[in-house]
Amino acid sequence: MFKEEGLSVELPSKGEILARLQALQNKMSERGIDFAILFQNIDIFYFTATMQKSVLLVPKNGDVVFFVKKSVNRAKEETPLDFISVKDDREIINFIKSMDLKGRVGLELDVLPAQIYLKWTKELNLSDVVDISGIIREIRMIKSEYELRQIKKSGEIVDSVFSSVKGFLKEGVTELEVASMLESIGRKNGHPGVMRMRGFNQEMDNITITQGISGTVVSYADAPILGQGFYPAVPHGASLKKIEKNIPVLIDYGACYNGYITDETRPFVIGKLESFFEKPYKVALEIIETVNEIGKEGVNTRDIFNRAYKIVERAGLEDYFMGYDEGKVSFLGHGLGLEINELPVITPRHDIFLIEGMVFAIEPKFIIPHRGVIGIEVDFIVRKDHLERVTSFPYSLTVV
Amino acid sequence: MFKEEGLSVELPSKGEILARLQALQNKMSERGIDFAILFQNIDIFYFTATMQKSVLLVPKNGDVVFFVKKSVNRAKEETPLDFISVKDDREIINFIKSMDLKGRVGLELDVLPAQIYLKWTKELNLSDVVDISGIIREIRMIKSEYELRQIKKSGEIVDSVFSSVKGFLKEGVTELEVASMLESIGRKNGHPGVMRMRGFNQEMDNITITQGISGTVVSYADAPILGQGFYPAVPHGASLKKIEKNIPVLIDYGACYNGYITDETRPFVIGKLESFFEKPYKVALEIIETVNEIGKEGVNTRDIFNRAYKIVERAGLEDYFMGYDEGKVSFLGHGLGLEINELPVITPRHDIFLIEGMVFAIEPKFIIPHRGVIGIEVDFIVRKDHLERVTSFPYSLTVV
Repeated sequence: MFKEEGLSVELPSKGEILARLQALQNKMSERGIDFAILFQNIDIFYFTATMQKSVLLVPKNGDVVFFVKKSVNRAKEETPLDFISVKDDREIINFIKSMDLKGRVGLELDVLPAQIYLKWTKELNLSDVVDISGIIREIRMIKSEYELRQIKKSGEIVDSVFSSVKGFLKEGVTELEVASMLESIGRKNGHPGVMRMRGFNQEMDNITITQGISGTVVSYADAPILGQGFYPAVPHGASLKKIEKNIPVLIDYGACYNGYITDETRPFVIGKLESFFEKPYKVALEIIETVNEIGKEGVNTRDIFNRAYKIVERAGLEDYFMGYDEGKVSFLGHGLGLEINELPVITPRHDIFLIEGMVFAIEPKFIIPHRGVIGIEVDFIVRKDHLERVTSFPYSLTVV
Repeated sequence: MFKEEGLSVELPSKGEILARLQALQNKMSERGIDFAILFQNIDIFYFTATMQKSVLLVPKNGDVVFFVKKSVNRAKEETPLDFISVKDDREIINFIKSMDLKGRVGLELDVLPAQIYLKWTKELNLSDVVDISGIIREIRMIKSEYELRQIKKSGEIVDSVFSSVKGFLKEGVTELEVASMLESIGRKNGHPGVMRMRGFNQEMDNITITQGISGTVVSYADAPILGQGFYPAVPHGASLKKIEKNIPVLIDYGACYNGYITDETRPFVIGKLESFFEKPYKVALEIIETVNEIGKEGVNTRDIFNRAYKIVERAGLEDYFMGYDEGKVSFLGHGLGLEINELPVITPRHDIFLIEGMVFAIEPKFIIPHRGVIGIEVDFIVRKDHLERVTSFPYSLTVV
């Protein structure tokens, strides 16, 4: 039933799912974790190919036990794994108790609510609990060729949206009007409408359109530009500001295809770019081009950040790079996958060495108080000896 | 800056914010909770009128302490409360330590990630911790007149969307195409694009359009109809099914205005409704009309459910009411407010007596395997001696 009416998407093979689970078990053995109990939808989907109300028990050796509460019928159609159909948590807890597991357990402590944590650790008498999310995020950081194909399809939705901007970006229309039209185009091209972001208190717009001061409003989030929104209740996203000539408009769009998220930003201008924005624009462009040139397997993400920062310093634009004052964020890019905030984070705070199959967005952005914003965001796939672009729409300034 | 470019929305007065905090402190005293530490964005927004990276400390008596990490500038513009600007959690923890608070502490255990729970209970040496979310949800359940005005404005967005359906619902277009156009209309009319749902593993579509079997696919969620979606990675929402004549199309739309969510469903049909769907349609209509007639302050929500269920039984439609087989849910309606799953829940499982200011959706829906879906969802405000509708678009079947 599902397949008849759905998009004809490629699904992960059983071999791929088993390899993901094997990777998890290997890392669990390395880190001395005896078993893991997973609860989060996205993690469980990654390891089972189905998103149900379910719990996944992973011992460090041997078969996983996949408990599905609802929908059992949909799980049957979707997962290549065997599973146990259960009515409620009580059944799962009793089953796990009967397995008499011992040792250190991994739980997704970054996202699992305290209530569930307290209930399950008490019921199962778990005393040695560690966070398993770091390991899961490390595994998910390296995409398979299957996943990279999905990422590239997601990039096609990004291209379809940026290619449509010229038809809608006009003097006097509001940021919101442009956003609503572009979102609609992305949706028609297959965007399912969700943007997943890991963590507490996170919410993500499908599109952020900012121009001038609307882009300079600082938000609660760890993002350089989140938009002004309409009111304090939703303090992000497009505003009702009317689009003007000569001031850059930044369009930050997040696509999703088969669960895989891409996230890029393009600068547009109606008329002629005000000279004030030329320098930061050229610096952003130079950073993208430099990263594209130096990026390949083995490069340290800290060095990528530092190289970009040198370009910023040479131009004397440090004060505006990735935000100003309290709005400054400490990264230049972030990983992409089933969630928009995956590893690697491109930051000077730590070393991650690029590995083939990583996917990340690089987003040099300048936020200049009282004036506006300019920047670019481009997604890259790490290959052995180069970076591969995810989209094809030009990342240079588009004049409308 | 914000106000110039934003919608001209009504913001809660300082008196209203202080009354909300007083209500929380009163309930904390009643339940023997000495202080509470709030972390969740929506809860903090409710009690402070601003949504920042922040923590709110509420003692059972005396002034609250509001710690704002980011954005301090935006908090200054938005909250009527005094607050302390802090750099990080360390500063907040040290400040709270210096207050030497004693006794039972309330935390939002239903949403607070275990990692944050473990860190703060350890750092602050908290041993007597209870869940404060139940109390917060009870307070938020009763809306002020200010909030009801926002809810009604939210309902206007719902009306704008349902009023536009006739222009887009055509034979041969896909559910997705209709969804993308209607979403766009809602956005242009001020929908900020977010739909907030409390809890772990929750995600919410802005619109769900289903017809025939696409509506009958069971999902992981506690909802009778969630749509089929395109693929297992996002197993809900509009599908690529083409709209046909004579079969009911259900359009379930969620609006947001100034943070307040409304959520209604209408049945549409192109041509003439197949006779098969007439009985369940009339039963859904009778349930809505019965609830509208009997609802007022003092009525038990359990009785509302039971009254509706009697109508279902009389028609012999129990097997399809609110889902079939594993897809059946045990409620007929849910509260609305800053989140889509607020109290009261209209269910036979417990008693909640209606109080003026409650807002809830009643959604009698029939899901008939291999055939399709039909139903209605209408939002009501509880008044002393009647229910008040939130929207004005007719809830009866619209023939296109």
